[in-house]
Amino acid sequence: MATGALKLYSYWRSSAAYRVRIALNLKGLPYEIVPVHLLNDGGEQHSAEYRELNPQELVPTLRDGHRIVRQSMAIIEYLEETWPDPPLMPDTARDRVRVRTLSQIIACEIHPLNNLRVLQFLERTWNVPQAERETWIRHWMQEGFRALEATLADSPATGTFCEGDFPTMADCLLVPQVYNAVRFGLDLSEFPTVAKINEECLTLEAFQNARPENQPDAPPS
Amino acid sequence: MATGALKLYSYWRSSAAYRVRIALNLKGLPYEIVPVHLLNDGGEQHSAEYRELNPQELVPTLRDGHRIVRQSMAIIEYLEETWPDPPLMPDTARDRVRVRTLSQIIACEIHPLNNLRVLQFLERTWNVPQAERETWIRHWMQEGFRALEATLADSPATGTFCEGDFPTMADCLLVPQVYNAVRFGLDLSEFPTVAKINEECLTLEAFQNARPENQPDAPPS
Repeated sequence: MATGALKLYSYWRSSAAYRVRIALNLKGLPYEIVPVHLLNDGGEQHSAEYRELNPQELVPTLRDGHRIVRQSMAIIEYLEETWPDPPLMPDTARDRVRVRTLSQIIACEIHPLNNLRVLQFLERTWNVPQAERETWIRHWMQEGFRALEATLADSPATGTFCEGDFPTMADCLLVPQVYNAVRFGLDLSEFPTVAKINEECLTLEAFQNARPENQPDAPPS
Repeated sequence: MATGALKLYSYWRSSAAYRVRIALNLKGLPYEIVPVHLLNDGGEQHSAEYRELNPQELVPTLRDGHRIVRQSMAIIEYLEETWPDPPLMPDTARDRVRVRTLSQIIACEIHPLNNLRVLQFLERTWNVPQAERETWIRHWMQEGFRALEATLADSPATGTFCEGDFPTMADCLLVPQVYNAVRFGLDLSEFPTVAKINEECLTLEAFQNARPENQPDAPPS
């Protein structure tokens, strides 16, 4: 069980932090946001203080009392095991593997290619111009969304949400990835099932409250 | 429980397939290897037949009777839930989250940047020369291995293996990643804990039998 208050080291626009905010909200767990600005001062995630918490110099990091938890999917599984109710995972191994597969299509195949450090490498080390960087981003998103759509559209297991009729870890990953896709101008009309699930999720307060623009560290609009 | 024979769609040198081979061997589960050649005929993973099994057009895919399971970490968690003995995950949420974090440092932050499809994009779409592609590979490996080493070296939880004294999912990911690192000439002396765990793992038959060069589809040496 919890050993103290929950603190989430987060950046308003980080889609990995967004995943964990959704999960915490769905669980109804109170938590404090500790903003880590990924751009100011060369990136606060690279400070010695933050590196102590997270040697990958990435957000999010969850602090549960004295315990430090890293990597967004690992954090969500930790929340699930520590506070099982309401569940973010289905009951059977068959359904759980589907939720993990959908989550990993996003976390292992789409997001890692498009996160800030990779875009900074392309810009700073290789001088890849912005238009080409955006081609890169859209290419990997398109590949990943096609696989996601094929997996969701073909399956009787897909319900109102990615898996059945309550939100699971997969939805915690899908919504932030759609946010990123929209931000980079990906045409979602090719992915109707993904778009529909995203809309459904965003009718829920847990998802709304986790949105980047609703974070304490979001710049005034 | 199993609904039939296990078949693993695998490529000898795919590090994601290597992870699952280790897990299957550690569990003592018999399985048939179905080779998918990632380079011949423009890549057999892109065939219509394989895409039916895996819309991401990636290996590995596990077939358990009529059930199709994808994404290497999801497959390993599925094996763990379906055949719990011997375990590949520790007992407590605290220790399990550490195993998942270590696994995800590799599966979400190192491997996705260096897999075949990304290197092919750099070569074919951007004409990035081989020396630069190798700089790219080593850069992301170095970043990832530093985080891995920091996480492992600093922790009393690290034992003979990544977590304690029996091999877990994290070791199933570490050994194939070290194989890739050596292949691309990364200097491991900076990462002594990683190197030591890798050596320890490779004393076990389950890891030896999963090695790329011991696969039925490996070319004659």
